[in-house]
Amino acid sequence: MPETTPLELTDYIRATWDFKPGVYFRDITPLLEAPEAFERAIDQMAQRVAGLKIDRIAAAEARGFLFAAPLALKLQVPLVPIRKPGKLPFETLSHTYELEYGTDTLEMHVDAIPDGASVLVVDDLLATGGTVRACCEMIEEAGGTVAACLFLIELTGLAGAKALAPHQVISLIQYD
Amino acid sequence: MPETTPLELTDYIRATWDFKPGVYFRDITPLLEAPEAFERAIDQMAQRVAGLKIDRIAAAEARGFLFAAPLALKLQVPLVPIRKPGKLPFETLSHTYELEYGTDTLEMHVDAIPDGASVLVVDDLLATGGTVRACCEMIEEAGGTVAACLFLIELTGLAGAKALAPHQVISLIQYD
Repeated sequence: MPETTPLELTDYIRATWDFKPGVYFRDITPLLEAPEAFERAIDQMAQRVAGLKIDRIAAAEARGFLFAAPLALKLQVPLVPIRKPGKLPFETLSHTYELEYGTDTLEMHVDAIPDGASVLVVDDLLATGGTVRACCEMIEEAGGTVAACLFLIELTGLAGAKALAPHQVISLIQYD
Repeated sequence: MPETTPLELTDYIRATWDFKPGVYFRDITPLLEAPEAFERAIDQMAQRVAGLKIDRIAAAEARGFLFAAPLALKLQVPLVPIRKPGKLPFETLSHTYELEYGTDTLEMHVDAIPDGASVLVVDDLLATGGTVRACCEMIEEAGGTVAACLFLIELTGLAGAKALAPHQVISLIQYD
C-alpha cells in the first residue's frame, strides 16, 4: 500500500464464500501474512484495553492463541491457554457447554487464575459467542472476574455480544 | 527472582508425571504465565535464527501458534498457520502422515508459500518430529524451502532431529 494511505485492517480480511454453507467466512490469514497489519491489530487491541485492570489474558485454542500471545507480551501480562480436553498436562478445571448440535468441553489448569484476578478473554472472531462465554464461565468458576472480551472481528448479526452480557465486548472490526 | 540471578528458561518448565504414561511431560504453561520468561524465550529464538534467510514463519496448531505469532511479529515476517483438516477457509494443500498408530492430516492455504520462499518452522516441543516433518514436506511440496526447524524444547532421547534431517534443528532447551 502507498505510504499516504492509512493501513486499514479490513483490507487484510478475506471473505471466502461457502466455507460455511451460504455465508461469507472471514479469513484472517492475509492479516497474519502482513506483519505491519498484524502488528497494527495487536497495537489497537492494546490501546482498546488500556484503561482496564488486566491480571491475566486467557484464550481458547487455536486461533485465539495467535492474538493472545503477542498481546500478553505487549502488555506484559501472564497468558492462560484454554484447551480442548486432554491437552493440558497439570490438574484441570473442565467446562462443558451447549452448541447448536451437541456439546463441547474446554479445560484450564486449576492454578491458572488466582482468586480475584481480572482476566481479559481474547479471540479472533465473535460469532454466537458460545466458546468465549464458556471461557468466561470457567474463569468465574475458578474465582476470577472477566475484565472484558476482546476480538479482532465481531459478526454483529449473530448477537454474540448479547450472549456475553454483562461482560464488556470490544472488537476492532465489525461486520453485519 | 532476584535481579542478580540470570533468568533461566528451564525454571519455567514444569515436569508433570504420567500425563503421558510413564514419562515426565514438559509443561510450558508456567513460562506462558511469566511474561519476562516468555519474552526471553522469543528473544532467544530471534537471536538463534538471526543469520538465516526467513521469508515466512510456519507453525502447526495449537501450541506452535503461541511462539510463532510473537516471533513473526518480532522478525516482521509473514506467519503461515498450518491446521487440522477443515479449519482453513481458502483453497488448501493437504498432507497426510504416519503416526505410531494410524495417520494424521494437516492443511495449509495454497497461496501461503510463494515459490522459492525460505520458511522457518516453529513449534514448542520436538519429540519424535512427526508433525514438524509433515510441515516441512508440505512446505517443500508448495515450492518453498525449509530455513530451519526451531523449538523451545527438544527431547533429545526421541531422536526428532534425526527424523527432521537434513533440515537444521535449533532448540533453546534440551532434555534427555
